[in-house]
Amino acid sequence: MNTICKLFNIQFPIIQGGMVWCSGWKLASAVSNAGGLGLLGAGSMHPEILQEHIHKMKIATNKPWGVNLPLLYPELDRIIDIIIHEKVKVVFTSAGSPRKWTAKLKSHGITVVHVVSSSLFAQKCEEAGVDAIVAEGFEAGGHNGREETTTLSLIPQVRQATTLPLIAAGGIGSGQAWMAAQNLGADGVQIGSLFAVSKESSAHTAFKKSVYDAKEGDTKLSLKKLAPVRLLNNEFYQIISKMEQDGDSSDKLREALGKGRAKKGMFLGELEEGELEIGQVSAMIKEEKTVPQIFTTLLNEYQTVKNEIENSSKYQF
Amino acid sequence: MNTICKLFNIQFPIIQGGMVWCSGWKLASAVSNAGGLGLLGAGSMHPEILQEHIHKMKIATNKPWGVNLPLLYPELDRIIDIIIHEKVKVVFTSAGSPRKWTAKLKSHGITVVHVVSSSLFAQKCEEAGVDAIVAEGFEAGGHNGREETTTLSLIPQVRQATTLPLIAAGGIGSGQAWMAAQNLGADGVQIGSLFAVSKESSAHTAFKKSVYDAKEGDTKLSLKKLAPVRLLNNEFYQIISKMEQDGDSSDKLREALGKGRAKKGMFLGELEEGELEIGQVSAMIKEEKTVPQIFTTLLNEYQTVKNEIENSSKYQF
Repeated sequence: MNTICKLFNIQFPIIQGGMVWCSGWKLASAVSNAGGLGLLGAGSMHPEILQEHIHKMKIATNKPWGVNLPLLYPELDRIIDIIIHEKVKVVFTSAGSPRKWTAKLKSHGITVVHVVSSSLFAQKCEEAGVDAIVAEGFEAGGHNGREETTTLSLIPQVRQATTLPLIAAGGIGSGQAWMAAQNLGADGVQIGSLFAVSKESSAHTAFKKSVYDAKEGDTKLSLKKLAPVRLLNNEFYQIISKMEQDGDSSDKLREALGKGRAKKGMFLGELEEGELEIGQVSAMIKEEKTVPQIFTTLLNEYQTVKNEIENSSKYQF
Repeated sequence: MNTICKLFNIQFPIIQGGMVWCSGWKLASAVSNAGGLGLLGAGSMHPEILQEHIHKMKIATNKPWGVNLPLLYPELDRIIDIIIHEKVKVVFTSAGSPRKWTAKLKSHGITVVHVVSSSLFAQKCEEAGVDAIVAEGFEAGGHNGREETTTLSLIPQVRQATTLPLIAAGGIGSGQAWMAAQNLGADGVQIGSLFAVSKESSAHTAFKKSVYDAKEGDTKLSLKKLAPVRLLNNEFYQIISKMEQDGDSSDKLREALGKGRAKKGMFLGELEEGELEIGQVSAMIKEEKTVPQIFTTLLNEYQTVKNEIENSSKYQF
């Protein structure tokens, strides 16, 4: 049995990224109901909002699901209390060290997965006792590593560095890419962009539409002097880009960034002033699909390429 | 039969990148003799040197081979005369428009392949009448596209944009990555880094050793204000990186770059002053191998992952 399916007791090794402003109970429950693992994105929820989503989640699905938790979250203690109190079974942590919280979460029977962008951090995760690792490449949307290692280069290296179950993220927008990620050493995949602009995502319609319209090369890794983040080209991005070209300081960039940019762009649909976080695969997403439609497509593509590998002369030498 | 094998009449769809300062007749003939397609790297050869390598190549192998030709080359007319006069059968062009030269080369019976970093340029190549396309992702060593699209994101998009035979480049350092590239829509792969530091490469031993010692994250896309190029971290890289952080102008960067940096670094082994062009997969290359050893490893890895796809429960849902 596939290691990731076994670990989470799910049908397909497809994890939905717990993305800010996109991943409420509607999206996460749809993914879990389709046979993947849905994640609530706690990064954009106040504690009481997360609690509400957890309650709705329990009604919306009886399949496994989890919470994604950026460890730099300001109200982290309260959030962790809620997760434990609500008996959440799976937590994906990111943006911080797994050392501090993994043991506590695991002592409550929670399966803990941490997101990394290098094999060095994958080893640290293993030492911290996590149950699985997400390795996320340069092409991923939103916050990203400083090493700029792409998924194709990263996964084989993380595979060498750890024996833990491994989930590839970044650039996975099709069944072919899912298959490719498994070939590189991953056991399963985490998919962000496709789900971020699905019908069930809580993101603003205007943001979703800007993603359907996005072309190749329209996202760039930005704000590298602060925390690198992959954004869609818009007015805000252009301003930051110009400042970076001119060598402006971190302080100036922080001032220009201000607060609440991601909410503005992705949740309120302020397309020019907001931060529009999305991955390079956005160029391949042309229309709104429901989560069940996304799963059907992924599975068809996966099965088609599997048949080709087994039968096509393209693969025979 | 695999499209790339058929196009070039070779055993395996593995093309050796025609890299400056690495790809003389020794490397190219070893690759062709091993069943791939070897390319002489004309980009670092004066016309008379290229002619000499072509002569040696004809003695060293009776298998198919070609010449890689950056179209911005200063003595381009003379080089093209030599290629035609010597009846070279395959030319890979890069760094320029395929529009100007493809027809002339093809009128002499030459198979023409052009290197691109976007599907927009892939379409232009098809219009220009090339026979195949290399699509090269962000993780590749040396000169690189401005779009920063990774191989995992790029190949499916180029596959949609053209029906021409498609070769994936950037991040291909193993049989698993070769399989992954084919899954994404490529018919074959072009491999640079592995061959750049092989025993048969004409690069300096000190450069090769610096690649064996390189770790994850040790290469970065640099000189973006001029022409983006992926370099290994060294003193020269640090100087340029600092200038870029400070927002220095193109003129200042051009002055700091000077001339002959790649020769210094890769051919003369001046590791701190030179430009060390290599891809992200350098982190996975730990020792010198011969070209036949590289082929054996690639084929074993490819066959192993193919067997796994067919038989392992990891791939069954």
